Amino acid sequence: MLRRFQKIDYKKELEAAAKSMILVHEPDTLIKMIVRMIMQKVKVSHAGILLYHQENDSYVLTVSRGPSGIKIPTGFARLSKENPLIRFFSQKKDREIFDTPAFNYYKAKKVLARSRIPLELRDLLNSALYQMEIFGAVVCIPSYFRDDLLGLLFLGKKTNNRDFAQEELDFFIALASDVAMAIRNAQLFTELESELEKKHRLFIHTTIALAAAIDAKDHYTHGHTNRVTNLSLEIAKRMAEAGKKVIDTKFLENLHIAGLLHDIGKIGIPESILNKQGPLDQDERKVMNDHPLVGAAILQPIRELDEAVLGVKYHHERYDGSGYPEKLKGNEIPLTAAIIAVADTYDAMTTDRPYRKGLTRDEATKEIKRVSGTQLTPEVVEIFLKLYEENRI
Amino acid sequence: MLRRFQKIDYKKELEAAAKSMILVHEPDTLIKMIVRMIMQKVKVSHAGILLYHQENDSYVLTVSRGPSGIKIPTGFARLSKENPLIRFFSQKKDREIFDTPAFNYYKAKKVLARSRIPLELRDLLNSALYQMEIFGAVVCIPSYFRDDLLGLLFLGKKTNNRDFAQEELDFFIALASDVAMAIRNAQLFTELESELEKKHRLFIHTTIALAAAIDAKDHYTHGHTNRVTNLSLEIAKRMAEAGKKVIDTKFLENLHIAGLLHDIGKIGIPESILNKQGPLDQDERKVMNDHPLVGAAILQPIRELDEAVLGVKYHHERYDGSGYPEKLKGNEIPLTAAIIAVADTYDAMTTDRPYRKGLTRDEATKEIKRVSGTQLTPEVVEIFLKLYEENRI
Repeated sequence: MLRRFQKIDYKKELEAAAKSMILVHEPDTLIKMIVRMIMQKVKVSHAGILLYHQENDSYVLTVSRGPSGIKIPTGFARLSKENPLIRFFSQKKDREIFDTPAFNYYKAKKVLARSRIPLELRDLLNSALYQMEIFGAVVCIPSYFRDDLLGLLFLGKKTNNRDFAQEELDFFIALASDVAMAIRNAQLFTELESELEKKHRLFIHTTIALAAAIDAKDHYTHGHTNRVTNLSLEIAKRMAEAGKKVIDTKFLENLHIAGLLHDIGKIGIPESILNKQGPLDQDERKVMNDHPLVGAAILQPIRELDEAVLGVKYHHERYDGSGYPEKLKGNEIPLTAAIIAVADTYDAMTTDRPYRKGLTRDEATKEIKRVSGTQLTPEVVEIFLKLYEENRI
Repeated sequence: MLRRFQKIDYKKELEAAAKSMILVHEPDTLIKMIVRMIMQKVKVSHAGILLYHQENDSYVLTVSRGPSGIKIPTGFARLSKENPLIRFFSQKKDREIFDTPAFNYYKAKKVLARSRIPLELRDLLNSALYQMEIFGAVVCIPSYFRDDLLGLLFLGKKTNNRDFAQEELDFFIALASDVAMAIRNAQLFTELESELEKKHRLFIHTTIALAAAIDAKDHYTHGHTNRVTNLSLEIAKRMAEAGKKVIDTKFLENLHIAGLLHDIGKIGIPESILNKQGPLDQDERKVMNDHPLVGAAILQPIRELDEAVLGVKYHHERYDGSGYPEKLKGNEIPLTAAIIAVADTYDAMTTDRPYRKGLTRDEATKEIKRVSGTQLTPEVVEIFLKLYEENRI
């Protein structure tokens, strides 16, 4: 009576687990979780899952470990479709000689002994059984999606050395199907996530490359874009540490893009002005000061960049309203732009120009502090000074 | 006996469906599929699902239609968390006054009648029941992920007008949980897919914007990049139609990027050469001819662009080996580059330059045909001519 109760109990637990596993989207975690659970609840020496991987058109042995510490030879960690075990379960007709989809090593041996099996199938079965011996598997349970073999769940001996009851096997048949489905689902999810990650990297790297190429046109500011971007991100992260709520992943992403593209409008400035030796005259200054607007105009059509464009457009505004292009004042200046303004000013001051030597870090930091509240936004300068004190600049 | 058999039958069918639905990743399709199935198998007047949507923090009525043609007032197609029906199922304590998670309209009425329910809960129940009346729902079955209410499945009257048996309700409780899990999974999938799509658009649009900005530096080739990109893609698609196997989504994506960036190296050419009125001298020509290599160098660090870079680097190679930068010959020229070469040549010929008027479409096409096998790759020219004959250029 007690034994019966225990049986029902692990079934319930496994069923509940099978349900919730649909939302576990990390295949490795999922498989490890399932195999560990089966081993704990069912008391088998070890368990494993062979799962179809589309990218190499083969079945990969994802986990097989147990108290008995079974070792799988490296060559068998991946089975091709030609492997007899896989072939046996892929061919519907062959499976029909057994009354259940759960393939039992000892039963199969008996079926082989009492013969009447065509030679070819006999050979296949023998090879499949040999493969099971290598895995130390007593039972093999296939699972299908439509007619395709998604995977095989296999179990070693029960730790009490008894045979598996049919009731137990039936339960595993249902479970194997749930498991395979959940794993397939998790695989698809992971594939999609890694594609998204790749696409993001591609976007950022291409933007970096193009921004750097445009940067290179301005002979005096080599590496400027990268330095401003990195410093801006440092400031923002430090602001988040200090409890600033609006700085989330999305904000950082926009700041990253805005940093990379803040001077993109310089592409519209003739080289004669951009690379002029000496200070600019009034007309040249006017052309130069158009670059935030030109940059914003270039990026305007890209709806996804709406937030980032604010950083590009307003990074030359000043806290007291004396900046350009729109003479925004105080909190009217978007935070992205206010952060870039501090990083941009610091980098401009510490870089050598043809007509003047760059300031030291100390001198530049003092100057940043001095123009806080007139040129630069105090809230940002405060964080910048903290970074400086913490030796993070 | 027959009735009993039918009952088991629909359960099996629904269970099988519940399994396979995990891999249906389009929420709308999934929900419609499930509701249709329930209605067919279970013989109820109508069925519906209220599903939690994170983006607007409310429960959306996704489907509710049946032979009786029930109409849901528009205002009720979305329920906020304050709706009494939602509130009732979100509060564990309230649900406990019923012995099953399946909420039966008539049973609830009885419970209300026999009283001993606190006034506040009584009010909530009455309002929840009124909401059920609006939906024409006899039974409401909630499903949870951990402690959160994911959704509500509701059923109208059975078409034979009998009450639901407890066995039936138990089955629906299990089903509702599977369904909600599958739908939540599908939602997550769709969200991820749409993020990927957005990221791709962002990447392409940013590349277009930056390429166009660089393009604009070259006063004589306004819109050149866009025209070459579009024509290249047309040629490639026509090649695919004609049975060219290598042209798949990946190829087209790389060609798209290569087209947009094929002249990116021109950013390294001084404006004095780029915009010179009249033909270039030998030294200037040498600087100009470096642009494919400069472009390739800019993009080289981006591993994901390896294929696209080939199109940038080799779009000035010639079929007979007399091109630059590497004097590649015939099939040594990557297909991406060979396609861009045709589109680039055609666009250059049909565009006015300061020192010559552009050719007509007919004249340019004749010229393309003439240089096939010397300058341009015959396989690509052949397709170009087909497009021309079909009036698609």
